[in-house]
Amino acid sequence: MESVKIDFEKASGLVPAIIQDYRSGDVLMLGFMNSVSLAETQRSGEVVFFSRSRNKLWKKGESSGHVLKVREVRVDCDADALLVRVDPMGPGVCHEGYRSCFFRALDSDGAARITEEHTFSPAAVYTSLPREKQP
Amino acid sequence: MESVKIDFEKASGLVPAIIQDYRSGDVLMLGFMNSVSLAETQRSGEVVFFSRSRNKLWKKGESSGHVLKVREVRVDCDADALLVRVDPMGPGVCHEGYRSCFFRALDSDGAARITEEHTFSPAAVYTSLPREKQP
Repeated sequence: MESVKIDFEKASGLVPAIIQDYRSGDVLMLGFMNSVSLAETQRSGEVVFFSRSRNKLWKKGESSGHVLKVREVRVDCDADALLVRVDPMGPGVCHEGYRSCFFRALDSDGAARITEEHTFSPAAVYTSLPREKQP
Repeated sequence: MESVKIDFEKASGLVPAIIQDYRSGDVLMLGFMNSVSLAETQRSGEVVFFSRSRNKLWKKGESSGHVLKVREVRVDCDADALLVRVDPMGPGVCHEGYRSCFFRALDSDGAARITEEHTFSPAAVYTSLPREKQP
């Protein structure tokens, strides 16, 4: 057991946080955390990012209800990246209506092919609420 | 099918690239790519990062021989993160001798617990070659 100091300085106070489905192993999305959002994630047991575009804390699922329940937080060798293994609540994490934000394969010619099926309707989930944006 | 423009501008010319074992689904590491390293990764079929610490292209496995054979590149909804699904050559990607760089669980009090077993000896693999550093 050792104490680890997360290296928030390499990227202006943020570290990338990979979100992985605990059961399926699928990678669902990538967000960023600052020290406050990491502490809040660990305190609450639900993922809280720091949104680069909105420049503030962003509780995942705050508008959709699709929160991410934390099962485990892992840290890499250099302590500058996190892997958060979660139980996702709801049918998907992506504001475009997919289970994972990585729903497209990138071909070598720069073309993107959608390889996944929609799992929910964004219009139905985000209606009358501010549209949830990826960070 | 659509053409996608990867958003390298959000993070000074770089995007985070998650490396996932194609067969097991395990997340092995996170690196960064610029447009040149992404093109070279796609051209060669082996992962090439951009090292932030060395400020240059970094072919993963250049000293260890543990290259990452690309099976698929995925792009997220905002086109600012990549998921590279690979067949890893060799016993592990981590310069500390583990299969995955995420070999520690982070407890809420900031303590890190090693949860994985060593899969190789870094001293034997990196002997007489420049030590391979994470970006």
